Amino acid sequence: MVLVAIDGSEYSDKAFQYACKLSLSKKIPLLILYVVEEYATTGYSILKELKNSSKEMLHKYRTKAELLGVPSVSSIQCVGIPAEEILKIANKKEIDTLVIGSRGKYGTSKDMIGGTAYKLVHYSKCTVTIVK
Amino acid sequence: MVLVAIDGSEYSDKAFQYACKLSLSKKIPLLILYVVEEYATTGYSILKELKNSSKEMLHKYRTKAELLGVPSVSSIQCVGIPAEEILKIANKKEIDTLVIGSRGKYGTSKDMIGGTAYKLVHYSKCTVTIVK
Repeated sequence: MVLVAIDGSEYSDKAFQYACKLSLSKKIPLLILYVVEEYATTGYSILKELKNSSKEMLHKYRTKAELLGVPSVSSIQCVGIPAEEILKIANKKEIDTLVIGSRGKYGTSKDMIGGTAYKLVHYSKCTVTIVK
Repeated sequence: MVLVAIDGSEYSDKAFQYACKLSLSKKIPLLILYVVEEYATTGYSILKELKNSSKEMLHKYRTKAELLGVPSVSSIQCVGIPAEEILKIANKKEIDTLVIGSRGKYGTSKDMIGGTAYKLVHYSKCTVTIVK
């Protein structure tokens, strides 16, 4: 199974494209993950809104993957710290490759990879692909 | 084209296996790279020996890939600092994915990725896969 983590950024969009191609060429299922970031300061109504918008995004990406002909597509929504939630799933399920963008929504530097990508590269037990 | 950097370690062997599968499933050529590490203290005769043994290793891996049915296999031998030489080739050629092991010959820590992998993840302009 190919696992791709998305966050709505252009980087995660590129990661999604790569993951679909990988899934298609390897003929293995695709799992799309969105982690809703939760901060101590996040109010209940904001969290509810974030959950709803990410649910819509996951639905949009699932449809995209299905239209591309990906053999089997599923999606998961989690709430927490992105790197931690991604690692939980990557290390629990039978993952062939975890695909991520080199930066996320808050990435600023063009040359360095983001903090989430950095943690995943170091602590993931499965193979990680960083899409540039 | 899939680019895989090997150094004779068990990690690079796993990276090679992954690269072959990727190349096969994507139906794209495979380029195998070996960088002979050159230090200021490396004598001429040692360098010659290292070059010969890595040439043999490249030949062995080329044959392995061909036997697996990889569409087109080529190899390159360079002399220098691994991360620098790998980046030169990765950023010059049309590389779909650069595949590397999470650690090299001198990797000690089981949890962290090696220095070469770290530099490649940060500075490569193409997509990088770290095989665990």
